[in-house]
Order: sequence, then structure tokens, then C-alpha cells
Amino acid sequence: MTVFAGGASAFGASRLGPVRVGLLGIGTVGAGTFNVLARNQHEITRRAGRGIEIAAVADLDIARARELVAAHKGDAVNNGDPVRVTDDALSVVRDPSIDVVVELIGGYGIALKLVLEAIAHGKHVVTANKALLAVHGNEIFAAAREKGVMVAFEAAVAGGIPIIKALREGLTANRIDWIAGIINGTTNFILSEMRDKGSSFEAVLKEAQQLGYAEADPTFDIEGIDAAHKVTIMSAIAFGIPVQFERAHVEGISSLQATDIRYAEQLGYRIKLLGITRRREHGIELRVHPTLIPTRRLIANVEGAMNAVWVKGDAVGHTMYYGKGAGAEPTASAVIADLVDVTRTLTVDPGNRVPHLAFQADAMADLPILPISEVESAYYLRLRVADEPGVLADITRILADAQISIDAVLQREPAEGEHQTDIILLTHVTIEKQCDQAIARIEALPTVVSKATRIRLEDLN
Amino acid sequence: MTVFAGGASAFGASRLGPVRVGLLGIGTVGAGTFNVLARNQHEITRRAGRGIEIAAVADLDIARARELVAAHKGDAVNNGDPVRVTDDALSVVRDPSIDVVVELIGGYGIALKLVLEAIAHGKHVVTANKALLAVHGNEIFAAAREKGVMVAFEAAVAGGIPIIKALREGLTANRIDWIAGIINGTTNFILSEMRDKGSSFEAVLKEAQQLGYAEADPTFDIEGIDAAHKVTIMSAIAFGIPVQFERAHVEGISSLQATDIRYAEQLGYRIKLLGITRRREHGIELRVHPTLIPTRRLIANVEGAMNAVWVKGDAVGHTMYYGKGAGAEPTASAVIADLVDVTRTLTVDPGNRVPHLAFQADAMADLPILPISEVESAYYLRLRVADEPGVLADITRILADAQISIDAVLQREPAEGEHQTDIILLTHVTIEKQCDQAIARIEALPTVVSKATRIRLEDLN
Repeated sequence: MTVFAGGASAFGASRLGPVRVGLLGIGTVGAGTFNVLARNQHEITRRAGRGIEIAAVADLDIARARELVAAHKGDAVNNGDPVRVTDDALSVVRDPSIDVVVELIGGYGIALKLVLEAIAHGKHVVTANKALLAVHGNEIFAAAREKGVMVAFEAAVAGGIPIIKALREGLTANRIDWIAGIINGTTNFILSEMRDKGSSFEAVLKEAQQLGYAEADPTFDIEGIDAAHKVTIMSAIAFGIPVQFERAHVEGISSLQATDIRYAEQLGYRIKLLGITRRREHGIELRVHPTLIPTRRLIANVEGAMNAVWVKGDAVGHTMYYGKGAGAEPTASAVIADLVDVTRTLTVDPGNRVPHLAFQADAMADLPILPISEVESAYYLRLRVADEPGVLADITRILADAQISIDAVLQREPAEGEHQTDIILLTHVTIEKQCDQAIARIEALPTVVSKATRIRLEDLN
Repeated sequence: MTVFAGGASAFGASRLGPVRVGLLGIGTVGAGTFNVLARNQHEITRRAGRGIEIAAVADLDIARARELVAAHKGDAVNNGDPVRVTDDALSVVRDPSIDVVVELIGGYGIALKLVLEAIAHGKHVVTANKALLAVHGNEIFAAAREKGVMVAFEAAVAGGIPIIKALREGLTANRIDWIAGIINGTTNFILSEMRDKGSSFEAVLKEAQQLGYAEADPTFDIEGIDAAHKVTIMSAIAFGIPVQFERAHVEGISSLQATDIRYAEQLGYRIKLLGITRRREHGIELRVHPTLIPTRRLIANVEGAMNAVWVKGDAVGHTMYYGKGAGAEPTASAVIADLVDVTRTLTVDPGNRVPHLAFQADAMADLPILPISEVESAYYLRLRVADEPGVLADITRILADAQISIDAVLQREPAEGEHQTDIILLTHVTIEKQCDQAIARIEALPTVVSKATRIRLEDLN
């Protein structure tokens, strides 16, 4: 069955038969990919110039896979041919009739084996697996280059937002200065709720789990690991360096206090979990942590489970990309965009394809990832102090000695009968180890009665 | 001179010589392109796999062209070869040694002739010329298909924001529902200033001209023509239809009152000049006009000369793309991204390239552009009325008869001794001709003392 009715095309490609896809994993994103491909087959074929057909589906839950396939019986997506359903994913990656393997299993166990095996069998690969690429990307891309196949991964970062394409193809004129992204919807939802309702992290996490915005085991999200996988991939693409997840500095939001969100608001800032990567003279910063950003910045107003990536290039200036970072169909949107890209490059000389990590493999930079102690940032400091004269003077003297300038101070009036109070300081940009040393000296003051709370602050200008 | 030092590449392309570019027009964007290409040559070559070299520059102001070229003497951008400078642009488009022509002259006089002549000579074309493509795009793309060359135009819409790439390649999985864009920086700057300062359009326009944000003859910007050129191009790409600028409905901001901006704010809305294109069952809406949008939408907070495009796709949901829509280097960023794309596709079978208008030429839809009377919108209505009992009842009865629901009413208290007042109504979505008929009946009421002010309102949800 042909999808559109026109006669012979001016484009040679549209005379070719459909591309045959093997889909590994039909959880949320796998089912979304199948559904969107079926629903929009006509629209997609009008763009791609040839059909994209799901030829085989592999899932351990073979009953679920059969049900999905049965629901689409007769749809153009399987082009009249029956879709092969199997629980043996290896048989799909080795099937000579399959052109492209879509890996939606996740993790880096069996997924790594299947991706490498697919490449070894000369198949192009589309994956949404950020963990796999952040940890094993260099090995996978090297294998793919060796075999002249594509590994496409738009869905691995920020769901349906075409941020990989923007960085890798849309901003090629630029020397990228930095990227800062809200790239984990779960934590952004939690932070939005904590701010709106003044609730504690624990209370909001529970709510998020009930609403399905957080997993039963939320560790990967709330501890920043998922965001670190994504920013690791963006860092490699932006700066032409190998993926180096193991060198990322990762802090999550589980120890964040509602108090600090409130004080930040009073000072004109919002707290977001940002993945940041920045070019410095002697290396690259790569870090995930809660961050104060000025409320007037557009990205500070990205609320709920939405994602946004802010990119600063030397020619283009500031750009931002916003949308849903997760979910069945937004992620399927990115998976299928990759399928269309791969379809268009099937007959192309590998040397003319867009390189996996944006830069040609023989032109990678060897800039190191800087240790967190060498990172430059401004800081929010909250100190619990005795309500005595001279406390602020002692603190500001220590900061001055460390050559750390102060941008703002907020001192709470102690409540009736209270003998302690909070001092909040915003510093100018400094090197992290300078800040660490000053904090150690401040905490040693007899009038400072608890450990300092320190949150990094980025102006994003 | 080679730009990076590595040995033989795994990529065939990086062994090819540089791509030779002929640059037509060295005004703001032309000079920006030359400068960015020179400054970032190393970074760009690491991405593209081969050098991009400016071989010839044509400008009527030959002294200016010589000065620019002299300033970059010895830079990698001219790769050791001298750049040919001429005032004869035709000699450049006919030069057999040139691979790609970059047209930055603007307008549709000589630019059309040069682009067609370049195509006829088998050259790929990169252009920032939105007017040319919105009016003559179909002819140009047909000629390019005939000769198997690319016409790339990322810079024609929203400056450095890679929105063409996002629509054409990043969102290929989607049936696009609608696009709404702030795609003219001059008018967005004027509207931001009118709101901030409560000033009149005329006063702010004058200020904008002094600051260089508006041209001496600002007609194209303030009357919405520039935005209409851009949304015409996006409409074609989103829906797979030919460019049809002549069918766009175009209203500018020159008759917008500060009063309405203020009332809109009170009701929770901001007024922006939007380019809107939307798929309806029997056709496509294509329109540019001042529009109320809810202040809580991210795009409502895009201020000053910045641009943003909001895209709703059926799978991806809402996405937004934000950045500088004009200026030398942001626009150069898009021109050079196109040069890199063209460089990568030079050796590619034309059938495998991304189609000019996103959809294959033989798979275009014949959905008509709807006349403005058939457009669906909500409306803001401001009426000057006699301060008498029953006025509001008469007005709301007329709207009810026309089956137009009311979403909000704001009635100003008449000032001491005043006998007239303003009534502001927000309607639900209706067909424009219904609204027109109701307004005619309302204006005929004896208690309504002036013509109604009507501004369209879009919820963007």
C-alpha cells in the first residue's frame, strides 16, 4: 500500500521501498513511537520521501507487544506486512531485513550489548538512552564509525525538544560559550511545587510520586544523575570533547530547604536544578546542582515538568529551546525525527553525515573537564548566627580577605524572644575553592551556630 | 593552510578541499558573515569536515567590500587565496570556481535575478531574504529542484534561532497544529516600551529609530509585512503547502493605543504582534496582527527586540524557540549553519536532501489559505459608551444572539462629571465574520458613541 497517491516523483528517494525498523522495548516510549508512527504515517512519508515501517518488535513482555501490534493491524505503519513480535531482541538486531534498530530498553546492561551487536550487523541505531550514551558513548560512536552507520539520539536529551539538532547543526557557526538546562522534569516539578506551596521536599516528592511525575525509586532524578547524563552529552556536542560522565559534578535537590527557596524569591531569584557546561580557558565545566537564577530570565519561568535549554553562542547570543522533556509522545517525536534523518542519510557517504558528537572524530579537542574546586560561580550563603553586634562585620571581613565581593545581604529580624537569626549573602563570581575556604573560616566563628547552606548562583548573562 | 592538524581522517569528506563561497552584499549581515566565518573558521571546519572559504565578494560599494576583505587578509577564511572583490554580482554567480552563492542583498529585484542565475549555473544558494522567498519561493525552489541544487534559508526567519531546522527536521514526526511567532524585533521592542512607559506608538517609534531598532522608513516592520513574509515561509514548511504571501492577512501595530495595552494588562494579557498559522479542517489560517496573549504564557514574556516562535505539534506538544531575530552576528550564525549544511550535502544525491519546504515536492497539500473572515479567534473589544443604564445589557444581548460567549467584562468608572465610559469585553473563540456582524450591530446602538476597537486574542493552548 502506498501512502500518497502522486505519480513518479522528482525525487529519486521516494521511489525506494519503506525503511524497515526493529523496535526494541515497548514501554511508554516504545508504544508512543509505534502509535505516532502509525497515526502520522502519511505526514511523515510526505516529508521523508519513503515510508518508515515497523518490521519487528522485541519485548520480554511478549503479550504486551502482541497487543500493541494487534491494535495497529492494517495500519500503514506495517505496510501490509505482519509485524514480527518476539522476546528475543538479539534476533531483531541480527535480522538481515532490518535497516534501523530503535533501542528503547534503557540502562547500560543488555542495551549496550544490543546496540553494539546492531552496529556490528551494519544497522543504524536510534536510541533515547541517555545513560548508555553518557557512559558508553565513546565506544558506541567509535564502533559506529568503523561500520559507517549512524547512531542518532535526539530523544536522549530533553525529550521532544530538538536540542541535539540545534546544537549539532543549527549553531555550527558558533563557538559555544555555555549551556544551562532544566533537563529533568521531575525535579523541576518538585521545585515548582515547593515554591508555590511552601512545602518540604519530602511532601512534594510524595505528591509527585502519586501523580506519576516521579518514579517509585526517584534516585536518578532527584540526585541529579539523569540531568548529568544529559548535560554530559550536550557538553561533548558543544565543545567537541568525548563524553565524560565520570568527571561530571552532580548534586541533586533532596537536601534543599523550602526556607532557601523563599529567601531566594525575596532576593529576586528562583532555584532550579540546572545542568551547566561552560567553556573556560583551560578546560570545561560540567556540573549539575540546584542553582539560583534571576527571576527575570525567561528560563527561570519554566515551571512544572517542562524542560528548557539555554545556549550562549558567540555569534548567535542567547537562545532558548523549550518543551516537554519526557512522556510517551514527546519522546516519540524525537525518536521519529531521528528515523527520518536516518532514512534520508541511508544512501549517503558516511563522510557527509553529521558527526555523532557534532565535530569530526579526528578533530576532537582535548580540553579537560575541570574539577568542581576550579569552577567559577556566584554563591548564595545562608548562615545561622547569634543575634549579636559585629557578626555581619566578622563575616564580611572574611569574605573580603578572600577577595569575594558581596552582591546582596538579607538579615532576618529575630522573632520575639529568639536569640538567633539567619543572614543570607549573595556573592559575586569567584572560584569555588576560594568560597570553600572562606566558608570554613566563617563556620569557625563562635557567633556562627550552624553549618553554612551554600547554593550556587548563575546570572546566565 | 590546513585548519586542524590531525592525520588522515576516518571521514572521507575531511579530505576534500574547502568549499568556495561567493558572497553577494556586504551590508550588516554580509559583514557579520565574513567576520564570524573568519573568527570561527577552526571551530566550523572541525564540525563541517572541510573548510568554508570566501572566494569572491560582490557589492556596489566596492570600497567597503575591499576594506572588509583587507581587514581579514591572511585569515583562514580566504585560505591563503586572495578574495576577489567586484561590483559585478553576475560575474560571481557565473564563476565556475564558486560552489555556493550567499545572497544578502535583500528585496526582490536584482536579488531574484541573481538567485535564479546562480541556480541556472548549478550553484547552491544560501539566502536571508524572506521577502524574496515569501513572494517568489515557489519559482525559486522549482528551479533549484530542476538543477538539483539546494536553496537554504535559515536566516530568513527569526535570525539566529534555528527555527527552520526545528520545523523541517526536528519535528518531522508531528502533524503541526499551529505556529505563533514574535518574529519582528522592531515591533516587539515598540510594544515592550509602550507597555513599560505607557507611551504612545509615535513616541516609541521615534525612540526606536534613534536607537537603531527601527529603520528610517519603518513601514515593512510596523505594518506587519516583514512578519508576514516570515510566517508565510513557516506556514509552507509546517503544512506542506506552497508559499502564498499574497493570501496572508496582515495588520501592523501603528494604530494600537496605549489604552488597550493597559486594559489588556488589567485583564491578565499582553499584546504582541504575532505571526500565526494554523491548520483547520478545510484550510490554513495565515495572519499577522496585534494579539492579546495570557501573561502567564512564556512567550508573553519575550520582551524588547527578541524573537520567539511557539509551535504546537500533535506528538511533541508545545515547544518554543527563543533568541535574537536580527543583527549582524545572529543572522550570520544562521547563514553559516546553512553553509555547513550545504557543505555536508554537496556530494549527496538530491533525492536524499531535506526538501526545501520540508515536504517532498510531489507530496504538497492543496489546502487553501482561509480568508480572514473564516478565521477562528477570541476577541478583545473596547467600546466607548454613554454612561446610562442598560448599555451593557444591549451589548451582551447582541453578542448572545450571535452566539458569541463572553469571557470577561471590564467597565471603567466614569470620571467625575464624565458622561461616557469604556466597556472592555473579552469573547470566547468565534468565527471572525460572526464577530464582524455583531460589532456592526453594537456600533449601531445609540448608546455606543464611537467605533469599536477590536484586537484578536489567542490563548495559545
